[in-house]
Amino acid sequence: MYKLYYAPGTCALASHIALEEAGADYRAERLDFKANQQQSPDYLKINPKGRVPALVTDRGILTENPAILAYIAQTFPKAKLAPLDDPFAFAQVQSFNSYLCATVHVAHAHKGRGARWATEESSFADMRRMVPKSVGACFALIENGMLKGPWVMGEQYTICDPYLYTVSLWLEGDSIDVKTLPRVADHMKRMSGRPAVQKVMGEQQAKAA
Amino acid sequence: MYKLYYAPGTCALASHIALEEAGADYRAERLDFKANQQQSPDYLKINPKGRVPALVTDRGILTENPAILAYIAQTFPKAKLAPLDDPFAFAQVQSFNSYLCATVHVAHAHKGRGARWATEESSFADMRRMVPKSVGACFALIENGMLKGPWVMGEQYTICDPYLYTVSLWLEGDSIDVKTLPRVADHMKRMSGRPAVQKVMGEQQAKAA
Repeated sequence: MYKLYYAPGTCALASHIALEEAGADYRAERLDFKANQQQSPDYLKINPKGRVPALVTDRGILTENPAILAYIAQTFPKAKLAPLDDPFAFAQVQSFNSYLCATVHVAHAHKGRGARWATEESSFADMRRMVPKSVGACFALIENGMLKGPWVMGEQYTICDPYLYTVSLWLEGDSIDVKTLPRVADHMKRMSGRPAVQKVMGEQQAKAA
Repeated sequence: MYKLYYAPGTCALASHIALEEAGADYRAERLDFKANQQQSPDYLKINPKGRVPALVTDRGILTENPAILAYIAQTFPKAKLAPLDDPFAFAQVQSFNSYLCATVHVAHAHKGRGARWATEESSFADMRRMVPKSVGACFALIENGMLKGPWVMGEQYTICDPYLYTVSLWLEGDSIDVKTLPRVADHMKRMSGRPAVQKVMGEQQAKAA
């Protein structure tokens, strides 16, 4: 059985939804970020980076969403969560997820995680002011080309979709009106109708309450 | 024939070395970052993100190092640049490269690319001061566990190695003494002895001169 470490509201939601979509046998283990549990000595033994997601497998522990998502797709091929037999199409999937991980998530993180990259309160305030613009620029690219529709890669639902849904949930808090992004809004609506998404969101929110 | 867009000193070096190691038929196309050529209308048609690397293939254009590196490994299996038949081991490769892309490169980028995330000169100065500490913390994790040795994944050279080499080249400019990181220093030395690395470095530096 897999064990996925997550915290509500974090990017670990993407891997959580993918495990559910794949029909994997797993347990979701909630960390309390308010108590800084991700930096506890016990958790640092699991993931020395002090972040989520971390997926415990019988072979060892995996971290980083793009890697975990590709692992789930490759390990559960019947779920058809990625074009596994086409290196170019698979690279397109990885490219999209890499962009979410390294550019979109990073832009968003400057709202609340500025201490990763600076020390002064004035810098944090400056960073927070920039988030609607920097995240907005990312989502303009997603809206105008990267999101093929109806799913990210077109007709086939893939591991890109739970990841895009996860970062799209941050838009409102980043002061970006999703109504200005109709294709992203449509994607969010489609995602929220999926049983796997409803089950995972219910579990995460129930535990968080 | 593939075409790789790069600029000297950037992370595109990782994909450039991997193409060379794979024995791919490719041409490297240099962009002039000092002239901001990556933001020119012609280049934005190739990569709307205005970044490098971008790999032009006969199927279309790929961006993002982790995706391009995996694509090269999968397309040239005889070069044995990744454990292609083992989803867990492949995910370990992707996890390492994702960390370089989304955490190490991002920490480094706060030295010279602060305008991505803030607007004030005081914030940029604050970010610059943090780089030795933030990049240093990343490399402490790499030195003390992630880099298995002699290559990143152990005995087998993979697509993690040119990527680690690429970001290791930034250490000196980030005011981190590589002598404090003996395993990383050994890795850099091993890499610099590889014919593919020497050929690519020669080409990039000659063109840059």
